[in-house]
Amino acid sequence: MDIGALFEKNELLPAVIQDQTTGRVLMLGYMNRESLTKTLDTGRVWFYSRSRQKLWNKGETSGNFLDVVSIDADCYLNSLLIQAKPHGPTCHTGEVSCYFTEVFKKDGKL
Amino acid sequence: MDIGALFEKNELLPAVIQDQTTGRVLMLGYMNRESLTKTLDTGRVWFYSRSRQKLWNKGETSGNFLDVVSIDADCYLNSLLIQAKPHGPTCHTGEVSCYFTEVFKKDGKL
Repeated sequence: MDIGALFEKNELLPAVIQDQTTGRVLMLGYMNRESLTKTLDTGRVWFYSRSRQKLWNKGETSGNFLDVVSIDADCYLNSLLIQAKPHGPTCHTGEVSCYFTEVFKKDGKL
Repeated sequence: MDIGALFEKNELLPAVIQDQTTGRVLMLGYMNRESLTKTLDTGRVWFYSRSRQKLWNKGETSGNFLDVVSIDADCYLNSLLIQAKPHGPTCHTGEVSCYFTEVFKKDGKL
């Protein structure tokens, strides 16, 4: 699909990163048109940092890049799901996934 | 963890819904404190609709509720990952997942 259409409604889209091999959801970042273009051009995930207000290549510091396998948009073009192959742990803490802070677990509210 | 802490930085958090059985990422919605509280109280996913500016119980129209299995926050408390058991197709189009609009596929740019 035309990439321009993706950013007609929203300047930034949340992008969910899923490990294509394990199915684990690794992180969520934000993409603008430029970061998606760089992602497609390089085959590695680029985000737009809202706090630093600039593009960043996931892994540029740690070496833990995310190689893109596929990108899908949701039915309202409000978010992206990216299947990727991570070079190493995705979280800056060294955890495989950024989602390790338990809020609730059935049969054992935390 | 204390739910209040989750909404100190952000009033709304993107919440990724993953099918606990298949691993499929189904959709992304937004939660405020009230919708998370209702989710925890009922065991089913409630979102906050940004366009309609009100809470909605996913499945209230279609019957395709999402039963919550677990909820985790990311390392910066900027988003949620919810493992759920869907009662039926999650997308309003009848698709299992809202992510069926291909933007890119490796070895075959769309």
